[in-house]
Amino acid sequence: MVGGGQLARMTAQAAIGLGVEFWVLADTAADSAAQVSAHTQIGDYRCAADVLAFGASCDVVTFDHEHVPGEHLAALEAVTAVRPGGPALRFARDKAAMRDRLSALDSLRALGVRCPRYRPVSSLAEVVSFVAEEGGWPVVLKATSGGYDGKGVWICDNESSAADVIAHGIGLLAEEYVAFDRELAVLVARSPKGQGAAYPVVQTIQQDGICREVIAPAPDLEPGLAMRAQQLGLTIAAEVGVTGLLAVELFAVGDELVINELAMRPHNCGHWTIDAARTSQFEQHLRAVLDLPLGTPVPTSASAVMVNVLGGEPDLHSRLIHVMAADPGVKVHLYGKAVRPGRKVGHVTVAGQDVARLRDRAWRAANYLSRGTDN
Amino acid sequence: MVGGGQLARMTAQAAIGLGVEFWVLADTAADSAAQVSAHTQIGDYRCAADVLAFGASCDVVTFDHEHVPGEHLAALEAVTAVRPGGPALRFARDKAAMRDRLSALDSLRALGVRCPRYRPVSSLAEVVSFVAEEGGWPVVLKATSGGYDGKGVWICDNESSAADVIAHGIGLLAEEYVAFDRELAVLVARSPKGQGAAYPVVQTIQQDGICREVIAPAPDLEPGLAMRAQQLGLTIAAEVGVTGLLAVELFAVGDELVINELAMRPHNCGHWTIDAARTSQFEQHLRAVLDLPLGTPVPTSASAVMVNVLGGEPDLHSRLIHVMAADPGVKVHLYGKAVRPGRKVGHVTVAGQDVARLRDRAWRAANYLSRGTDN
Repeated sequence: MVGGGQLARMTAQAAIGLGVEFWVLADTAADSAAQVSAHTQIGDYRCAADVLAFGASCDVVTFDHEHVPGEHLAALEAVTAVRPGGPALRFARDKAAMRDRLSALDSLRALGVRCPRYRPVSSLAEVVSFVAEEGGWPVVLKATSGGYDGKGVWICDNESSAADVIAHGIGLLAEEYVAFDRELAVLVARSPKGQGAAYPVVQTIQQDGICREVIAPAPDLEPGLAMRAQQLGLTIAAEVGVTGLLAVELFAVGDELVINELAMRPHNCGHWTIDAARTSQFEQHLRAVLDLPLGTPVPTSASAVMVNVLGGEPDLHSRLIHVMAADPGVKVHLYGKAVRPGRKVGHVTVAGQDVARLRDRAWRAANYLSRGTDN
Repeated sequence: MVGGGQLARMTAQAAIGLGVEFWVLADTAADSAAQVSAHTQIGDYRCAADVLAFGASCDVVTFDHEHVPGEHLAALEAVTAVRPGGPALRFARDKAAMRDRLSALDSLRALGVRCPRYRPVSSLAEVVSFVAEEGGWPVVLKATSGGYDGKGVWICDNESSAADVIAHGIGLLAEEYVAFDRELAVLVARSPKGQGAAYPVVQTIQQDGICREVIAPAPDLEPGLAMRAQQLGLTIAAEVGVTGLLAVELFAVGDELVINELAMRPHNCGHWTIDAARTSQFEQHLRAVLDLPLGTPVPTSASAVMVNVLGGEPDLHSRLIHVMAADPGVKVHLYGKAVRPGRKVGHVTVAGQDVARLRDRAWRAANYLSRGTDN
C-alpha cells in the first residue's frame, strides 16, 4: 500500500488475519502505518523511482490516498498489478474528469442521481459568469486535485472571497452549492472478477469540511433511497472499472441524490465496519485488490456510531484510562499520530440499538480523548 | 510479549488499535508474530540475558507461553513490571504446585468445584500404588511442566504403558482419569487494580489432546453451572494473583466441575472473541496487563463456533479463495506458520444463531483449508 497514514495502518491490521505479507511505502518511519507494519519501505510517492522500486517487490499495489501522479501509475502498471488501476484512479484524483465522466452516465440519471452543476474556472470573471448562469451565490470552488478533509474546498459568498481563492493560482472547479437535507455515503467493493458488495448506506456529519461523525445505517432512510444509493455505488464502480473499495459521498435533497466526492480506498465513512460489520472495510479492500471473493458486508449490530478524535490536548494516551473506565463498550482506535489541533488522531465506535444513546456515548468518548472533558 | 507464536501475533493486531508500542521476543524472524510485528527482538526465552535485555526496553512484559524459567522471571521483576507475575505464573508452569494450591482453596469447594485426585510420581511402583488407592486404570500421567497441545499428557490403561512414560525420566504427576460428560472452559481477565471480567463459558472439543473446536457459549449449559464456572475463574484469578487473562479448562461431570488445566495468557478457547465479542481476548489481555480498565466481554452474536485449522496439504493460502467463495461470512485467521501435519496453522470463526449450522460451516471451512476437501 502506497501511503503510510491511518488507512494503511488499519489495512495492515486486517492483513494479519488474512496471512498476507503487507508492505507500506511511507514518507518516514514515524508514519502512522510504519509504526505498526513489519514491512515498511521509506520513499516519496511523488518520486517515480521510489514508487517503481516499491512496486517491483509487490504482487499487487494499492493506495491509502489518491495523490500518486498519473504518469507514475502508468509506469507502475507496466511492472505489477495496480488496483485500483490508473484509469480508474484518475477519477478520484481529478475532480473535473470525474464530473465529466459521471455526468455522461445514463445509468446514474436512471437512478435519480445527478452531479452538481460545475465548470472548470481559471479567472474571477469565469466564476462570476458561472454564478450568474447557474443560480447565484454562494458558489463552491474546489481544487481540481490534491484536496482532502476540507482542504482544497472553499464556499464563497461573494466576489471578494472568490478572488482570494483564484489568487492561489491552482486548477479550480466551480460547483453549484447544494443546500442538502443531510449527507450520506455509500461504500462498495468491486473485485477484478467483477464481484460487488455494498455496505449499508450511512449518514455523515462534517464540521469545517472534516468528517466528524458517521451513523450506520443512516437513520430513517427510506428503503428505496438506500437501495438507489447502493446501486449508484455499484454502478459507478463497474462503469469506472474500480478494483477495491469505492466510497461515494452524497448530498440528500428530498428524494434526490447528488454526488459530492469519490474515493477509491478505505474511507472514513467505513471505519465503523471494524467493530460492527462481519467484514471490515480494510479486510474487504484487501480481498478485492487480491481478487479474493468478497466478504459479507452485513452489520453485526443494529446500529453503530463512529466519531473521529481530533487533536487537542497532547498526551492522548493517558486519557484512555478515563474513557475506558467510563464506558467499557466503547472501541477506541488510535493512529499513533503526533497531536495537532484539528488533526484526525483516532476514532471511536459504539455499537448497539438506540442511536441517540450511541451518539451520546461516542461523542463523550471522542471529546474526552480530544480535550480531557466529555462535552 | 515474550514468545513469537500465534497468540503474540494476534495480540500485536490488537495493540494497533490501542496505540500501544508492542514488542515481541521471538526465536527467529520467521516466527508467527515476528512476521507481522514492527518491533521484534530475536532471542531465547530460556536465556536470562536475552530475557533481561528485552525486559529492560519494555514498560510491561507479558507472555504468549508459560515456559520462561522461574529464576528468569524473578530477575525480570527486578527491572520492570511483569504481568502475570512470577508467583502467579508458577501455577501455570508447574502442575503439581497448581494442584496443591487449588486443592487448598475452600472458596472453590464452596462452588462445587474440585481437582482430580493427583500425586507426584517418579517410579512405576508409585503409579501402581496411586492406581490401587485412587480407583484403578486408566490413569493420566502428565509432565509436571513444559506440556502443551496434548504433548506431555498420557492416558495409560495398564502397567506396561505407564512404564513407557516413566522411562522418559521427567517429573510426572499421576491424576485420576475423569470420565467427563463434556469439556468446558472459562476465560477471565484481572487487572492489577483487581478489576475482573468473565467471558461466557464455552464448550471445547479436543482430538488427540489438541483443541479442535470451541462453541460459544456452551450449548444448553445450565445457568447456575455457567455462573459457578465464571465464579471459579474469577476466584482463582484473585487467589493466585493473576494479572492478564486466565483460562481454566474444566471437565463437566453431571453437576460437578473438575479443574483440568490453567493458562495465564490469551488462549485457544477465546479465539472466537476476535469476531464475536465486543472486546477480543487479545485486547482484553493488553488492557489488563497495562492496568487499563477492562472492556466488556459481552458477545456480539447469539453464538459463535471456532475450529482450528491443522496443517495438512501445503500451500494453505491458495485454498482461501475456495473457502471465501463458498461462505462469505466465515472469518479466516492464518498464522503464517509453515504447514506441518497436525500443527495449528490458523483458525476459522463463524458467528450467528443456529449452532448446528454454524458448526457445519466452520468445519467445512477448516477442513477445506487443511485438506482441500470440505469433509
